[in-house]
Amino acid sequence: MSKRVGSATIMLENSVSAVSFACVGGKKEGEGPFGDIFDYIDRDDKFGQESFEESESASQGLALQNALEKAQLKATDLSFMFGGDLLNQCIGTSFGVSDFGVPFIGIYGACSTMSEGLMLASLSVDSGAGDKVAAVTSSHFCTAERQYRFPLDYGGQRTPTSQWTATAAGAVIVQKGNTAPIIKAVTVGKIEDKGIKDANNMGAAMAPAAYSTIKQFFKDTSKSPDDFDCIVTGDLGLVGSRILIELLHRDGIEIADRHLDCGCMIYNQKEQDVHAGGSGCGCAASMLCGHFLPEIRAGRLNNILFAATGALLSPTSTQQGKSIPGISHLAWISSGV
Amino acid sequence: MSKRVGSATIMLENSVSAVSFACVGGKKEGEGPFGDIFDYIDRDDKFGQESFEESESASQGLALQNALEKAQLKATDLSFMFGGDLLNQCIGTSFGVSDFGVPFIGIYGACSTMSEGLMLASLSVDSGAGDKVAAVTSSHFCTAERQYRFPLDYGGQRTPTSQWTATAAGAVIVQKGNTAPIIKAVTVGKIEDKGIKDANNMGAAMAPAAYSTIKQFFKDTSKSPDDFDCIVTGDLGLVGSRILIELLHRDGIEIADRHLDCGCMIYNQKEQDVHAGGSGCGCAASMLCGHFLPEIRAGRLNNILFAATGALLSPTSTQQGKSIPGISHLAWISSGV
Repeated sequence: MSKRVGSATIMLENSVSAVSFACVGGKKEGEGPFGDIFDYIDRDDKFGQESFEESESASQGLALQNALEKAQLKATDLSFMFGGDLLNQCIGTSFGVSDFGVPFIGIYGACSTMSEGLMLASLSVDSGAGDKVAAVTSSHFCTAERQYRFPLDYGGQRTPTSQWTATAAGAVIVQKGNTAPIIKAVTVGKIEDKGIKDANNMGAAMAPAAYSTIKQFFKDTSKSPDDFDCIVTGDLGLVGSRILIELLHRDGIEIADRHLDCGCMIYNQKEQDVHAGGSGCGCAASMLCGHFLPEIRAGRLNNILFAATGALLSPTSTQQGKSIPGISHLAWISSGV
Repeated sequence: MSKRVGSATIMLENSVSAVSFACVGGKKEGEGPFGDIFDYIDRDDKFGQESFEESESASQGLALQNALEKAQLKATDLSFMFGGDLLNQCIGTSFGVSDFGVPFIGIYGACSTMSEGLMLASLSVDSGAGDKVAAVTSSHFCTAERQYRFPLDYGGQRTPTSQWTATAAGAVIVQKGNTAPIIKAVTVGKIEDKGIKDANNMGAAMAPAAYSTIKQFFKDTSKSPDDFDCIVTGDLGLVGSRILIELLHRDGIEIADRHLDCGCMIYNQKEQDVHAGGSGCGCAASMLCGHFLPEIRAGRLNNILFAATGALLSPTSTQQGKSIPGISHLAWISSGV
């Protein structure tokens, strides 16, 4: 049985272990400071496909295939999987994983998808609903840009607060066990909407959601930032990260010395011309699967909070002048120490 | 602990009860043969809003509010909720439920959303991850038609196999208990893609998914159609229903005498000019929450299988000439008899 603590956090009583994880990326991600964490880098971002949407699907399938192979698993060993992406109707995922023939549960959390999937997969394993359960997600610069903003050929100028959608995919497989990394707890996020309307400033739109979820976790568990080596957000970027640190500071929660944001890490901000940083489901997913989980397995990190963040905007709602709601789900991941 | 049986079915060991359920609909749904099952009918389909997207959001919020009030619950009594819809980035849901301030988990299963949400909510309650958990979804003819097919003003001719997206929303709240209706088991569906490419024939695209999931449930549980009063699909419509019955018949599974499809029920096919029937997340959701769950509570039905079906298509993938994958998740719902 899972154990609810406080109003939104669930402690996983049976140790849930992330037994395998993998990530793949595109050319720009391979040239970034974490280029060597990827299991595969595709040099032209096409992953052998014709359309960019098919490329994104292929990248997601490849990430899952890599995660399966690392643990010497077959797809049929999975009880079921959770997956989603940024594309309309999540077609990156539907076409990316259908060939595996694994029972599938579609999720939508925008760029928070990896923490949402990891949360649901971990809860499923903890309860016995699943034995081995996967969470996968992806994003692709070319699919996201033309869907959310402008045609690629248009070459529109990007604002200083804009972020660069990562071409990347990540997959993690969890099962019962107490081998590091262990998922110790999860916190379900609320939709937070502070009225931000600028689709080129998603960091500001998402920061209140990360603030809400991280604060809730500390309240529910009576833990503090000191209990963690680092507190990782998904893709707040430079702008959103500053807002998050300030919002928590006002409540007396100091995370500045241990906050890391995948969007600030994945690229070299200046040399790679990404303005406020990286974004996309694949950004947090690849940094989790390629960097943080391996660091925990190796014992170089002992306890982290992973809170990917999603901006629940749509071109339709943006064009109708609506604000951008944000959401963030959280997982406490530990080496067991 | 949940108990896995077979490869995709989970028996819920702690009785999970659907303690409250509600649905709302538009004018056409109110004029249909089940018009009196709705808790509220909006006469101009606008639900007091300006845009159709805002109308859909309002309808979803209204369904949830009705379900809460029927059980004399406040939103804060919910541990968390699952929700999703057909709109790009699920904005019907994001804007429909954010004001409730309930921890939220976004799902995407197209028209299978109600069975996906009910499945996840039931598993969450069974495991103790949540105490009271809701599942909500909606669809709206005007938002879906202009997003998936043609501008509303265009007045395009509809093909004989096309279906009419229901303007409706449903919400169900589950918690531990053994008061009917009880959710006894769930089966996680696989993505099935038999190569159907006609976005106006979604029944044919989804039927293989319903076939796969229903067959899997019988295999996993050693049950047979005789154990159920009715086997309910979501929105296969006239075309998809015939295909489903034939596919199961070829395997020696006869459901013709007890199969019901929400898409075939919600409208009067001929008088209401809906061609192959109704569709949309709200179709299965409102028939479940307004008809089947009340019938089980009243003891007029004892055991049903509810397998809503989703077509995982997107205008993008359709325009790129891709096929339409389908998915169906299943719940066994019982009066306890």
